[in-house]
Amino acid sequence: MSLSELGARAKEAAQTLRTKDDIEKKQALIQIAAALTDNAEEILLQNQKDIETARDKLSASMLDRLTLTKERIRSMAEAVSAVAQWPDPVGKILEETKRPNGLIIQKTAVPLGVIGIIFEARPNVTSDCAALCIKAGNACILRGGKEAFHSNMAIVRVMREALTRSSLDVNCIQLVEDTRRESAEEMMKMTGYLDVLIPRGGAGLIKSVVDNAKVPVIETGVGNCHIYIDKAANPDMAADIVFNAKTSRPSVCNAAEKVLVHRDVASTVLPLLAKRLAEKEVQLRGDAEACSILPGAKPAAEEEWSQEYLDYVLGIKVVGSIDEAIRHIEQYSTHHSEAIVTEDLQAADKFLRSVDSAAVYHNASTRFTDGGEMGLGAEIGISTQKLHARGPMGVDQLTSYKYVIKGNGQIR
Amino acid sequence: MSLSELGARAKEAAQTLRTKDDIEKKQALIQIAAALTDNAEEILLQNQKDIETARDKLSASMLDRLTLTKERIRSMAEAVSAVAQWPDPVGKILEETKRPNGLIIQKTAVPLGVIGIIFEARPNVTSDCAALCIKAGNACILRGGKEAFHSNMAIVRVMREALTRSSLDVNCIQLVEDTRRESAEEMMKMTGYLDVLIPRGGAGLIKSVVDNAKVPVIETGVGNCHIYIDKAANPDMAADIVFNAKTSRPSVCNAAEKVLVHRDVASTVLPLLAKRLAEKEVQLRGDAEACSILPGAKPAAEEEWSQEYLDYVLGIKVVGSIDEAIRHIEQYSTHHSEAIVTEDLQAADKFLRSVDSAAVYHNASTRFTDGGEMGLGAEIGISTQKLHARGPMGVDQLTSYKYVIKGNGQIR
Repeated sequence: MSLSELGARAKEAAQTLRTKDDIEKKQALIQIAAALTDNAEEILLQNQKDIETARDKLSASMLDRLTLTKERIRSMAEAVSAVAQWPDPVGKILEETKRPNGLIIQKTAVPLGVIGIIFEARPNVTSDCAALCIKAGNACILRGGKEAFHSNMAIVRVMREALTRSSLDVNCIQLVEDTRRESAEEMMKMTGYLDVLIPRGGAGLIKSVVDNAKVPVIETGVGNCHIYIDKAANPDMAADIVFNAKTSRPSVCNAAEKVLVHRDVASTVLPLLAKRLAEKEVQLRGDAEACSILPGAKPAAEEEWSQEYLDYVLGIKVVGSIDEAIRHIEQYSTHHSEAIVTEDLQAADKFLRSVDSAAVYHNASTRFTDGGEMGLGAEIGISTQKLHARGPMGVDQLTSYKYVIKGNGQIR
Repeated sequence: MSLSELGARAKEAAQTLRTKDDIEKKQALIQIAAALTDNAEEILLQNQKDIETARDKLSASMLDRLTLTKERIRSMAEAVSAVAQWPDPVGKILEETKRPNGLIIQKTAVPLGVIGIIFEARPNVTSDCAALCIKAGNACILRGGKEAFHSNMAIVRVMREALTRSSLDVNCIQLVEDTRRESAEEMMKMTGYLDVLIPRGGAGLIKSVVDNAKVPVIETGVGNCHIYIDKAANPDMAADIVFNAKTSRPSVCNAAEKVLVHRDVASTVLPLLAKRLAEKEVQLRGDAEACSILPGAKPAAEEEWSQEYLDYVLGIKVVGSIDEAIRHIEQYSTHHSEAIVTEDLQAADKFLRSVDSAAVYHNASTRFTDGGEMGLGAEIGISTQKLHARGPMGVDQLTSYKYVIKGNGQIR
């Protein structure tokens, strides 16, 4: 099936899904969750094919992301059930005013329509994204990476089959079965069908979508996150926060990648930090001053200041002032999450106001930039752009609004 | 000066503007309003140059849009003063939660950053857009049409001069002084400098920006607006609403372009409508059935159903049901504003839910889709896309948000 046929079917599905109430969407999602568990064997069988093909091509960590187990499928089903229970954002009246001429204006949350999602090798993304889209009343067109082709085919088949037992159009969920690069490029140009395209994956995928898409895009995920240790920081708290933000899960976008430390405390804080990070064998990359304090650190290359390591590697720079820290972040950050550690409330306030990132922290780990941790529910990604939604994009952020205006013959 | 130099200066200006309080922004806008009035003579002189160059090239209506008068400059200044008085959206805490671990999460409104605006021949757009951007804490890069080159140069010079008497960076307002097509194309690719690009003008300009931009765009303005006259409509109300929506100002995007009428009432309502519209010599273009009822109507070509006439022309189609009306709108509308006229509340509810446009009306003229009329203040344009903002984009819609998270050492 061609992409424009998928698009036309999705548009039609979105048209009916828009008017469904929450009970119908909830029932459909519960069917999907049950079907994933019931068909776990079949999904695992298809996943095995992908793993065999990929075994010699992918790194161990990529292979791990690709691999499904009974336990992981159960988690996928549980995630779908959790989304089913989330309050329905659609139809919510966000603002209501009555104008002097008697017009009643209701700003009302509505679905976005058709959402395209391009992702890479994690098959669980398939069910996560589909569930979030449906809950917000959107049809979705999913395109996973070729590594997960058989797994995605199986998961989507199971989900669509479940939809036939619901009141929703089965075309609310569709998979692009063509995994060549050309199909992704064509998808980026589906104006007229896609209301938004969300890339979910590494920096390369996201850049390619941002550069080539003609449809509106939500840029997600890349996180070159900074922690600034102010001269008024509690050194133990700073060490705890950096240790947590760097090592609790280095492969994710909210992990810290850089530490900026005030010169006045560098010689006391950095050795403390290095000692903690050594527990996890974190490699340190410093500027000249940081390297002079930390004999174990290697010099960082200029391009590393912009880099997302996603690994047990941390860049460290000594700065002369909070202003220098803010300027450095402005220049090198991907504007995902940045933190200041300080006991000085004025310094904290300055940092929180001036740093222009999706999440800015005072005395906490950057690892909290996450839909679940922030109480926003499951997320489709972390937006690092400023239009539409910023930070975790949950069900609520997958909606738009329209103005519903009620009159009794008003003219202008 | 190159566009990337303008971009770098705007980014720097945005960085400081972000932290300014409302009093400073208000004072700067009041300075700008006063400067426009004080320098009216100079602006008119430069405008005269543009008019002389354009006299033989532009239509009368385009020439009228280009022309400034002392009165119009006073209106421009008044518009800037009105924006100055609008409540400051920046810093507003939109949501606040305390998590079980003690983290305080504040979803806080922040400026978008740097806004690019590409517009055509109306010089008043220059001061309107600059004022809206500044009030929301954004630096702007303006690029007007070549027809208004001297006028725009003068207006921007006056506004920047006024900024030197304020605490804001003068580079909060910059004009692209190169009016060749290439400069617009380059502007569309200024990723790294522009947070959003807003085209303000005709369908051609908007399509070109949507097709070519690599930066996030807000699509504005094109309005192929429909009025559906239901079988349960009050015929006199229907005639009043259509007459108003078509003829009160046909050149604007919220003017009605098409009427869909239910077959059961077509033969009574259409002649009534035609009689009213004849007062303003509106040309009627109908489908076969409408033409058979209205001898004065000419057959509409297929492509006209998608067309925005912006003139005293109205397309009329007879439909067999409300569902057919909804499907027609789904297919041909630009999703700006659509209205139903009916006394049947169930039909109204169905229309308001199913029609996916920025503004949907029951028993009122589409002409109310306007920031001022809707109580949203002055607007930079009417968004017809679903990401970020929909409908009138006022000061509030020129902001984004960030999550400000306050802890006391929380780790995950």
